[in-house]
Amino acid sequence: MKQNILITNDDGVASKGLRALIEEASRFGRVTVVAPEQGMSGMSHAITMSNPLYLRKIRQRDDVAVYACSGTPVDCVKIAIDYVMKDDAPTLVLSGINHGANSNISVIYSGTLGAATEGFSYGIPSIGFSLTDHDTEADLTAARHYVRSVLATVLERNDNNALCLNVNVPTLPLDEIKGIRVCRQTKGYWMEEFVRKTDPRGRDYYWLTGKFVNLEPDEPDSDEWALANGYVSVVPVTVDLTDYKQIEISRDWFSAE
Amino acid sequence: MKQNILITNDDGVASKGLRALIEEASRFGRVTVVAPEQGMSGMSHAITMSNPLYLRKIRQRDDVAVYACSGTPVDCVKIAIDYVMKDDAPTLVLSGINHGANSNISVIYSGTLGAATEGFSYGIPSIGFSLTDHDTEADLTAARHYVRSVLATVLERNDNNALCLNVNVPTLPLDEIKGIRVCRQTKGYWMEEFVRKTDPRGRDYYWLTGKFVNLEPDEPDSDEWALANGYVSVVPVTVDLTDYKQIEISRDWFSAE
Repeated sequence: MKQNILITNDDGVASKGLRALIEEASRFGRVTVVAPEQGMSGMSHAITMSNPLYLRKIRQRDDVAVYACSGTPVDCVKIAIDYVMKDDAPTLVLSGINHGANSNISVIYSGTLGAATEGFSYGIPSIGFSLTDHDTEADLTAARHYVRSVLATVLERNDNNALCLNVNVPTLPLDEIKGIRVCRQTKGYWMEEFVRKTDPRGRDYYWLTGKFVNLEPDEPDSDEWALANGYVSVVPVTVDLTDYKQIEISRDWFSAE
Repeated sequence: MKQNILITNDDGVASKGLRALIEEASRFGRVTVVAPEQGMSGMSHAITMSNPLYLRKIRQRDDVAVYACSGTPVDCVKIAIDYVMKDDAPTLVLSGINHGANSNISVIYSGTLGAATEGFSYGIPSIGFSLTDHDTEADLTAARHYVRSVLATVLERNDNNALCLNVNVPTLPLDEIKGIRVCRQTKGYWMEEFVRKTDPRGRDYYWLTGKFVNLEPDEPDSDEWALANGYVSVVPVTVDLTDYKQIEISRDWFSAE
């Protein structure tokens, strides 16, 4: 079946990673792009509630239409599904290719993955792609290869079921990548060191410079292990944030209320 | 044990719900507030990567210190834990009381819950409180009662384990609320209807006006059911977004790669 593909990202409509994803996805169907006007890294699942959104059609060529939107990546998915593609719902939502890793708990902060999980929340198969190299001019050869390979597999094997996959490609030449590993999110957290400086008007400001604290560096089921060992990591991501382990414990606590 | 409590919210440092939470939390220990200067509803787990953050001390009185931060709710938690409270880590992170519901999948978009899950990611017991009434002058009597009751129970029963609870209080007089129900996140999604208008300069703009589509309205284990039936809902929330059900399926798909 020819796919009706929605593409977005969080690096903005002019990014190299987005262009690469459009080209690779076009092999599988018709493409509509609704991507942020500007960089939206770290915007997570944010939506624009207190401001209007602007939408600008950039081009329509063959099977590719491109729009820029003033909002966040999740706004882009929403205005695409509920307005731009309202009469012709996407069969697949893709986000990326992000310039920079979205492995481990970074999935929670990532605009790229915010957009992909938003597609999933609408019941649409969705995939976020990231290359661990954050250089905006990074070589995307290996990433492109794995975009094609993951898309071919998912479109062949998944029977249109809603899901979200978080795909990260390590910064290696294609022939040094060992293949794909389906993993879980590495346990750990981002610890920040705030750089404190003084601005030209004499006010102190602070700048986030985080580093990831890996609580299980030797766990081969984790996505950080896969990337460190030369694999492409694929982590299925959910939009049900319920902590089911904690439910029974909490029920016991509150049963006397 | 006297608690060392960090409080934030997403309605901003001047909100009525924040003041109420500070007063109730003060019964249990020392309070440090780091809250956004401005309203940050819908900011989810967003962090500020491309801009500096400003921090302003508003007051220090007895056991309560209050700071306003230019960033998102998650920025507030990060700058609190890694800078303001660096030498005296919080034992509890509270967020709210939010003016408006954060039940169902709204937990994903919510700045209130973004902050609470951030506390959890640092290994700290964390709770987000919301009242389903979004009036900024809403009566907080019932919400205050359940803040006290939930805090007393968690501090008594939880042995300092990391967790995050999403507490929503229905808009009812206290004596009409039937008690607390520990639930799971209701299955469903937000569908947007975009209001399209033209601005004074002749450009079209769009405004999000979503409604929640409940895919399981009669499920008494869901938080929407609890709220609709007069209960306070408590949903334990995770920061591990791995979709474990999907892992085995995906491993099978990719095993031939």
